[in-house]
This record gives sequence, C-alpha cells and structure tokens, in this order.
Amino acid sequence: MVGSSKRVENFPDVVDLESSLPPSTIPPMEIHRVSLPQKKTTLQSLKQRLNEVFFPDDPLHQFKNQPFFRKVILGFQYLFPIFQWGSEYRLNLLKADVVSGLTIASLAIPQGISYAKLANLPPIIGLYSSFVPPLIYSILGSSRDLAVGPVSIASLVMGSMLREEVSPEKEPGLYLQLAFSATFFAGVFQASLGFLRLGFIVDFLSKATLLGFMGGAAIIVSLQQLKGLLGIVHFTNQMGFIPVMLSVFENRTEWAWQTIVMGFSFLVFLLVTRHISQSRPKLFWVSAAAPLASVILSTIISFATKAQDHGISIIGQLQKGVNPPSANMLLFEGSYLGLSIKTGIITGILSLTEGIAVGRTFASLKNYQVDGNKEMMAIGIMNMAGSCASCYVTTGSFSRSAVNYNAGCRTALSNIVMAAAVLITMLFLLPLFYYTPKVILAAIIITAVVGLIDLHGMIRLWKVDKLDFLACISAFLGVLFISVQIGLAIAVVISIFKILVHVTRPNTAIMGNVPGTQSYRNLAHYKEATRVPAFLILGIESPIYFANCMYLQERILRWVREEEERAIKMNESSIKCIVLDMAAVTTIDTSGMDTLSELKKTFDKRSIELVLANPVGDVTERMNQSGIWEQFGSEGIYMTVAEAVAAVSSMYKDQLRSHVFSIEQ
Amino acid sequence: MVGSSKRVENFPDVVDLESSLPPSTIPPMEIHRVSLPQKKTTLQSLKQRLNEVFFPDDPLHQFKNQPFFRKVILGFQYLFPIFQWGSEYRLNLLKADVVSGLTIASLAIPQGISYAKLANLPPIIGLYSSFVPPLIYSILGSSRDLAVGPVSIASLVMGSMLREEVSPEKEPGLYLQLAFSATFFAGVFQASLGFLRLGFIVDFLSKATLLGFMGGAAIIVSLQQLKGLLGIVHFTNQMGFIPVMLSVFENRTEWAWQTIVMGFSFLVFLLVTRHISQSRPKLFWVSAAAPLASVILSTIISFATKAQDHGISIIGQLQKGVNPPSANMLLFEGSYLGLSIKTGIITGILSLTEGIAVGRTFASLKNYQVDGNKEMMAIGIMNMAGSCASCYVTTGSFSRSAVNYNAGCRTALSNIVMAAAVLITMLFLLPLFYYTPKVILAAIIITAVVGLIDLHGMIRLWKVDKLDFLACISAFLGVLFISVQIGLAIAVVISIFKILVHVTRPNTAIMGNVPGTQSYRNLAHYKEATRVPAFLILGIESPIYFANCMYLQERILRWVREEEERAIKMNESSIKCIVLDMAAVTTIDTSGMDTLSELKKTFDKRSIELVLANPVGDVTERMNQSGIWEQFGSEGIYMTVAEAVAAVSSMYKDQLRSHVFSIEQ
Repeated sequence: MVGSSKRVENFPDVVDLESSLPPSTIPPMEIHRVSLPQKKTTLQSLKQRLNEVFFPDDPLHQFKNQPFFRKVILGFQYLFPIFQWGSEYRLNLLKADVVSGLTIASLAIPQGISYAKLANLPPIIGLYSSFVPPLIYSILGSSRDLAVGPVSIASLVMGSMLREEVSPEKEPGLYLQLAFSATFFAGVFQASLGFLRLGFIVDFLSKATLLGFMGGAAIIVSLQQLKGLLGIVHFTNQMGFIPVMLSVFENRTEWAWQTIVMGFSFLVFLLVTRHISQSRPKLFWVSAAAPLASVILSTIISFATKAQDHGISIIGQLQKGVNPPSANMLLFEGSYLGLSIKTGIITGILSLTEGIAVGRTFASLKNYQVDGNKEMMAIGIMNMAGSCASCYVTTGSFSRSAVNYNAGCRTALSNIVMAAAVLITMLFLLPLFYYTPKVILAAIIITAVVGLIDLHGMIRLWKVDKLDFLACISAFLGVLFISVQIGLAIAVVISIFKILVHVTRPNTAIMGNVPGTQSYRNLAHYKEATRVPAFLILGIESPIYFANCMYLQERILRWVREEEERAIKMNESSIKCIVLDMAAVTTIDTSGMDTLSELKKTFDKRSIELVLANPVGDVTERMNQSGIWEQFGSEGIYMTVAEAVAAVSSMYKDQLRSHVFSIEQ
Repeated sequence: MVGSSKRVENFPDVVDLESSLPPSTIPPMEIHRVSLPQKKTTLQSLKQRLNEVFFPDDPLHQFKNQPFFRKVILGFQYLFPIFQWGSEYRLNLLKADVVSGLTIASLAIPQGISYAKLANLPPIIGLYSSFVPPLIYSILGSSRDLAVGPVSIASLVMGSMLREEVSPEKEPGLYLQLAFSATFFAGVFQASLGFLRLGFIVDFLSKATLLGFMGGAAIIVSLQQLKGLLGIVHFTNQMGFIPVMLSVFENRTEWAWQTIVMGFSFLVFLLVTRHISQSRPKLFWVSAAAPLASVILSTIISFATKAQDHGISIIGQLQKGVNPPSANMLLFEGSYLGLSIKTGIITGILSLTEGIAVGRTFASLKNYQVDGNKEMMAIGIMNMAGSCASCYVTTGSFSRSAVNYNAGCRTALSNIVMAAAVLITMLFLLPLFYYTPKVILAAIIITAVVGLIDLHGMIRLWKVDKLDFLACISAFLGVLFISVQIGLAIAVVISIFKILVHVTRPNTAIMGNVPGTQSYRNLAHYKEATRVPAFLILGIESPIYFANCMYLQERILRWVREEEERAIKMNESSIKCIVLDMAAVTTIDTSGMDTLSELKKTFDKRSIELVLANPVGDVTERMNQSGIWEQFGSEGIYMTVAEAVAAVSSMYKDQLRSHVFSIEQ
C-alpha cells in the first residue's frame, strides 16, 4: 500500500458543460495513497509515550556506547557536577570566581539579614541560609552562574502564610519550628518533582502570570518596608494594599523624621547606584557594593550620633557562631502539620520557578544547558539539608545571580567563596552590626524588589496578547488586594483556563488555492488565495477531542450554511465537496472520531462529499483502529488538499461524462 | 507585499563540488512571501474572539435581512419554540404523538415513583415531577424527541449528597425543603449556563469519563435495590460497593424468600422484554409496556394473596391531587444553604449533560439541530419552575426518550399527552397503587439502569485510546468504591489532565520529501519519504506556549544533537539548516515567541540557519507585533517547506559559488 499511486488524467473538454466544476488550470496530479503508520503494540506505544512525557531530554544519552569504567565516572559526574567542572578547573579561572564570590557576598550579607525579617525570622537565620545551601548547591548544581541564598518572594510568602496561624512575636519558638519544617517539605517537594521528572509542573506558571505575580509581590514587600522607613511602631500584621495604607496613615503620629530622613537618603543613594549599573553593565560593582557600603556608612553614623536615642531603631545583638543543627526542630505531627506542608509546597514551587528560570536564563546567555529535573533535585536536597542546619527556604536569586554573571564568575566556586565570606562574618564580624539601623534594611529590600516590577514587559504583553495581559494583571491585582496565595491561585487558574479556552474553541478557516501553486491557505490571511468553486476547503486548527467536538461539528455546519447562502447570493454553484485539512489535527479521541463519523453521515444524506486531507500518523492509526478509516475509504482520504481537489473533481467529471453519454444515447 | 514572488534559478553545476547540498532533483520554484494578515484593531479582534467563544453558532442568523414584523414573530418563536411547531401542526401528526405520549406515560409513572425513592423522596414527588416539567419543556424546548421527567443518575446523586448531612427518615420536612432548594439552584445554574452561553462547560465531561461514571452509578443504583429485592429491613445508609455488600450479607437473616421470588421473577420478565425490544426495535412497545404491566400484575397478585402479611412490603397510601405549591419551602439562608447550592450545581450539571446529549442524539438521527444554549435555558427554567411546584430535578431521560422516538413521536406534544396521563393518574388512579409491592419498583429501576453499563463501549475505548480508557475506568472505580461525587471529580480531573499532558508534551516529527511531490511528511508515518541532506525538517504539532515552550526548546535541541550524531555515523553532511514546519502551530504566546527568538540566537551562534515554514495568520500577526518577524526576516519565513528548502539551498549554492570564485581569483 505504501507509495502506491494512480495518475488522474487531465480534465476532458466536457468540463465546460457544467460551470460548477473547478477550473481546469489545476494541473494533472499523481494521487498518493495515505499510508498507515507501522503497527505498534500497546506496550511499545505506551513506552514511547511515557518516554516523551518523562524523559524528553534523553538524560542518559551520554552513557550510550561507553565502556563500563567510563560509565561509572560519568555517573559520578552526573550526580555531582562538581567533579566534572572541578576536574577541569584551572587556576586562571580562580581570580574571576573569587572576585565574583566576594561581590555577591557583599550583597548577600545585608540581603540575607533583610529577607529573614521579611519572613518574620531572626536576622541571623538569613546569614545561616547564605552559608550552608550555597555550599551544597556548589556540589550538586549544574548552573555556573546561580547565586544561592534567601530570596524576597519566597521569604514574603513563607512569612505571610505562617503568620496567618502563628504569631512570630508571641510564639517565636513554634514559628521557627514551622519555618524549618516548611523548608524541609519544600525541599522534599522540589526533590521529588525532579526525581519523578514532573518538572513540567513549574511550566504551568506562565511568564505572563509570573510577571503580574512578581510585580504585585514586589509592591506588597515594599509597602511592608514603610514600617521601617517611617519608623512606625504599631503596624498592621496584614499584607494587603488597603490595610497597610490605612495603618500607615492612621499611625501618622508615630512617623519619626530622623528615621525618614536617613531611610530616604539611603534609598535614593541605592536607587541611583542601581540606575547607574543598569545603564552601564560594566559598572555592575557600583550597585553590588552599594548595600554593604550603605550598611557600613549608616552604622558609623548611627554609632557616632547614638541614633537609638533619637528614635532610630537598630539591629542590636546578634548571636555569633555557625549554623546550629535544627533537625530536632522539624515537626512531623501535630495540628500545624498541614500548614507547614502547604507553606512548603507553595514556597517550594515559587523558589523552584525562580531558581530554574534564573539558571536557564544565564545558561542560555553562555550557551550551555541546564537539566531542569536535575536542578530541581539539587535545589530540593539543598533545602532539605538546609532545614536541618537552621536555614529557611533558599534558591537561586535573580538579582544576585545577575551580579555574579556580570562580575565574571566562571564556575560554582563563586558560591563557595561567598559562603566562606559569610562564615567569616558570622564568626567574627557580627558585633559590627550592633548599631546598624533597621531602616537601612528596608531601603535595601525596596531596592532589590523594585526591579521585579516590569512595566515594559506588561506593555509588551498588552500589545501582543490581550489574554496574557489579563492573566498578568489579574495576578497583580489579586496579590495586591486579596492575598499572595490567592494571587498565585488566580494566576495558575487563568493560565490553565487560557489553554482550555483555546482547546475548546479552536480556529477553523476557509482555505483557497494560492495561484500558481499546489498550496491551499487561509483566505483571510492570504489575500491572493482564491476559492475553488463547488468546494469548501476548511482548515481545522486543533486536535479534535471531547472538549471541542460539539463545537467543531456546529461550526462546520455553520460554515456550510454560510457558504451555501453566499453561493446563492453570488450566483455560484452549490457545494459539492467539503475538504477538511487535517494538518493541524495532531490527535483525535473517541469523541472526535464519533463526530467525524456523524458529519460524514450528515453530508452523505445531503449528497455532499466529505473528504479528509493530510491526516497525521497518530490520527490515521486511531481512525483505522476504530473503523472510521473504512467509512471514509480510499476515496475519502488524501495526502494533500491539492490531491483531494484534483481527485474529487476528476471523479465528478467522470460522472458527468457518463451522464452526458447516457443523455446522448 | 502581498503576492510578491521571485523565481529561484535552477541549481548550477557547481553543486557537485559539495556533497552536503540537497539533491538537484528538486525542481525550480517560485518563492512566495508570507504575507501578514490584515491589521485589526484591538476592539475588532476582541469582538471576533468573543463572538467565536460565545456565539459560535451565530444564533441570530435567521433574523438577518428580515422585515421588522417578521423579526418580532421570529423572536417570539425563538423564545417559545411551541409557537413554531404549533403553528405548523397538522392533525395527521396527532395520532403518532398521542400513541408515543401514552407509551412514555406508562413508563414514566412507575419510573417516577421508583426514582423518587432513589432520591429518598416520597413516591408522589416522582409523579409531580412527571407532570409540571414536561408541560414547561413542551413550551420552551426545541427537541422533538426528549421525554422529560426524573432520571436515575441525578436522583441518585441528589439522594446521596443530601443524605450525607440530613437524614430523610428523621427530618423528612427539612430533607424535602433541601431537595426543592437544590432543584431550584440546579435550575438557576442551568439557565445561567445557557444565558451566559457557557454551555461548553458540559463538554468537559468527555464521553469516555461519562461512560465510566454512568456504569459505576448504574451498579451503585442496582446495589441499592438489593434492599428491596431481598426484603432487607436494616440496610446501610452508605452507597459504596463494599459497605452495601457487607450490609447485604450481614443481614442474611432478614432475607425474605417471598420477596425474593416475586422480585427476581419480575426482574427476569423485565430483562427479557428489554432484550426483545433491543434486538427488534419495532417491538419497542414490549419493553415500554412491561413496567406498567408488571406493576398491574404484581399489584393484583399482592392484593389477592394479601402479600403484606407474608413479608412483602407495599407502597401503601398515596396522597391524591395535583402538585401543591412549594415556593415557600425553598431555603435561601441557614446552615444548609451551601449544601443545597453544591447539590444543585452537581445534579444540575449531570442532568444537563444527560438532557443535552439525549436531545442531540435524537436530533442528529432525524437530521435537525438542537441549540445547546437554548436547551440549557429551557431545562433550567423548567427546574426553577418545578422547584416551586413540588418537583425535584428533572431532565430528558435517555431510556424514555428512546421509547418516545421508537414510538414515532413527531413533536413535543407527546410530552403534553404524557403529562395529561400523569395528571389523570394523580387525580383518580392513585388508590390502585396501594397494594403495589415495593420490590417491583426495585426491579424496574435495575432494568432501567442496566443499559447504562456499556461494556462494548469500554472495550472500544481500550482498543482505540488507552488514556480515554484510563479516564473511564478511574471514574467507574471512583464511583463504585469511593463516592459518586469523588468519581465525578476524578472523571473531570483526568479529562482536563489529559488535555494538559497533550498540550505540555506535544509531538515533534522529522519530515522528509515524498518523492515526486512538493510535500514533506513525517518520516515515521510515510515510509517512502526521504530526508533532505544537510536539512533538518521538524514538524511542531502543537501551539507553542508557556506550558510547552521549555519542552519544545529542549526537544528541538535534542533532535539536532541526535541528527548530528546520526550524520557523523552515516558519514553524511552535517546540518546546515533547520526548517520548522509551523502548519500545526495554531497559536503562539509571548513565552513561545521568546523561545523561537532564543532558538534563533542559539543556532545563529552555531552557524545553523533556522527558518520557519507555513506560519498561520494568527502566528504571523503576533510575531510581527512582538518584533520576532524582523529577527527572522524575509529569508527566514516561507510559505511551504518545499519553498524554504529550495530557497535556502539556492542561497547556499550562491555562497558556495562566490567562495569558489574567490578561490579561483
């Protein structure tokens, strides 16, 4: 059957008898039979399908055709990428890694302290979290540019979710236990996503919804900093835009001008340095060094002026020493188990999304590939280990990774350098932070998150895709006015709804012949394309399945009705044949096949020929299994629209000729 | 720009210098520029999109170009279809409608009493529900074959959901109020779905999942009848397979042989008549008359033998009279509001699905069309009105509609005839049911639902689509072993998950030239298709958007890697150009465009040309708006794969020639 073909003879002159037939400009054509794909057993097709779903990247391809010993080494390097880049490490890379490591350390220390506050945790937890996780990531991670540590969004979400049920002020011990437990569950969730190769779940957070979500979260985070920036003592515990603004203005009497002056001066300084680095990437060190410089400068000012006596609150005593073990603090039972699992899953997926996106972004800039599922396992293990060493949720930070990249990092060694710098700070330098004013931390946080509000991106969405923009703005407003979790939920639901609407209401288009070619294209798109008289050629731009088969059936009947009305109006011949271009029908299910079968019957009753053109392999296979293939028969399925048109017209002409012949007799 | 084209000259002889170039069997081709679709304003495209989503059937097309007076009449007929068929009614149709109306009445009376028991309601409610709703439907409904009344699945679901919180034995008054309230909310939900034109929501219950759900529910319903069939007094209140079977065997001592003998005799009789009618559709009246015949016969036996003294329980006294008003019994507040809304929505969507499916099935058999959204409004209003007239949820019943159709009904008048028969029964004949044994109702229910278990359908699913079969069997087992609601939820989730997996892991295929044509097809499907050397032609069989763009990027990179490895092994030339066949890429979102742009950059760095072939209108438009169009340029986008291959090869040959030329110089 494969490759069999028959030649359709050129149209005879009798054609002119009947104006309803297609123009004879169409050249004679070979008609190719549509072949069925090779038969596969259930097991084979299932295996192939599962392979595509879970192992699309063929992760073991480098192991193929290798000797055993080499396989062991490769396996070791696969599990611990440090052995791969470590074995190739040259001393000339060292300088770049040390410079970038120290640069991100100068950012990570003040940010770590600030983000811990965002999660309602003691500042020192932020430093602990900038020490152990980067070390673990440098062993397991495959990105060369990721700077690991606490990040703003995950800190905010963890803080707001846990605070809803447990007060960090009244029950700090329980709160800390819940934070570590949530971190542990986040790690378990992340590692299992990677291990079960379900990484595609993070893909359901589309860029558009993330844009809105991050923008909203950045504003929420910034508003929370008004407490510090204005020196307010009695601040609301809520996160929403309205309660925070109410709280700010209701407590006008608490505003402290000294705090305000200091805070806004440093905020302006930080924003200016940020602007400088953005417009000249070579000056990345200006914004990278600014937070630490601000901390040092403000601490000196605060120390010199005895700021705490003038209404400026300071950090105070910080516990010296390295991470204490915290495995015994994890809660695996009790009434808060649900809360910590829920918090863990949500912060886990958020931090995963950020970490994977950052890793992929910089990998594509340097043209290497990051294995998403492997990264998830690395980040997951890092958080599981972190939760046993007094760390809370960490991932690759976008802002610090950008600094790392700009500072010229070459390998994950820069994370080790950073961790070393944090270690030295924790062991020896913590007393220096005693006089650091809290207001400076607020300024650092605002500067860090302001970059998450991407107005240009939102404008681009509006221009290109209104539905994407709607998803973005809903997530944004949801975060701002309802809550961070609801905003996230809205974002996910809209993303999925968008897919479903597209699937439920697929496009159908009338196609015409592009003159001088065998191609048939959408008439609305190609102005030069012309209709073929007596034919209705419809492109179905979607798989046909249960969610859209009723719609498609009704829509096709409507096209036929409209075309017939048009034909009567324009005094053209009525429809003799409907060709469905199935090129974009990439799959079909049982409901879809019932629809095709029903349409065939309906048009048979109305003496209209229904033929299919260009069905893909999967569709032909299923049609064959269900018996619809025979219903259409070899005269009902063609390889291209052009062949279908040629074959059906020649068939009509044969009929016509025999009709003329019988009249003559 | 539209239609502009340039002719690519035939390949010169220098070709032979470089074996890596495509064979010169490809004929010279006109290259057509891919044009952009006409510019539309945001408002225009939004309007068009909304029109497609909400008004795909163009419901107002018959009003176009009509004089005002005619429009008013048409509008009246549109809202009340009875005026349409009523004004054309001829007396010769009357006989058929009366015969079919009486036939379905003889089914509806015993079924109405039985189904009310399934919903834990007094039997008379089932008769009330067979009187008012059919009358309303005959005014508003557009199906000619639907037989309206209570149905088994919706009765079962309402009964099991309400019983979970309120006992029908202990608080019959409250239970009745909740049943009417749930019916009211079901009606509101159904009518709003129709009014808001959101009818496609019922499409998300795929045929496959419904098959499993209905099969499971049928077994649950039948198991419940064991109480009546075996004469058990202390029966479990639970619905699951295991608790019911346990209850049946734990109460062995209560089994009453008289009940069992009578029950199984009539069950066998009913099943035999059902079998006769199924194998000979002309004998439809055999199974249609059997239930009423059984009721009459069993009542006589029961009366003659004083059955109630021998352990056979009888229906007893039934309140005479027509439907009492019940609007005052609707509960719009209180702690059970949530329950009745939830029950209303679930029974509403189930009964809607059955009603719409039944209407469409018989409409397609008689070749007329049923407007889904209008039907939803009709069914919704019927339930809202019914809830104020002591009726519970009703819809078009599959079994009775089939009888109606086979009995030769012509219009909705058969429903009016049926309602009249029910009215006479309610007014005068109820005392006759006093001695009717309850066991006969159990036998009638089992016979009615046994047809819902469609083993052949399940086997066909297994053959054609394993994932559909999985959805079906999960819904089946979910209903059987967990609960009706959970089974339904499983069915919906699997259906949606199936769509999402298809969307997240789309097919990509290497394509080759079908010899002697300009067509390029999947190599795995068309064995005769041949690769074009130095080209990698990939078919992308899905829209490109956030949910699959990471996957597609990785998959394309993997194809390239594998092709390059193959080329080295086979000693062929390496890849010079990648052609993406975009015919099935029916839309693209912002994430998808970023992916294309990134791929282009990646391959540019590797000196591989990336070109697109055959983008559809929507995709070209968005690419243009976002600036990706310029990135690819006119030399990067072609109308067909064949033109892309011809143009790129000729370009390479030009380069090669000038290279040779410069060497010669």
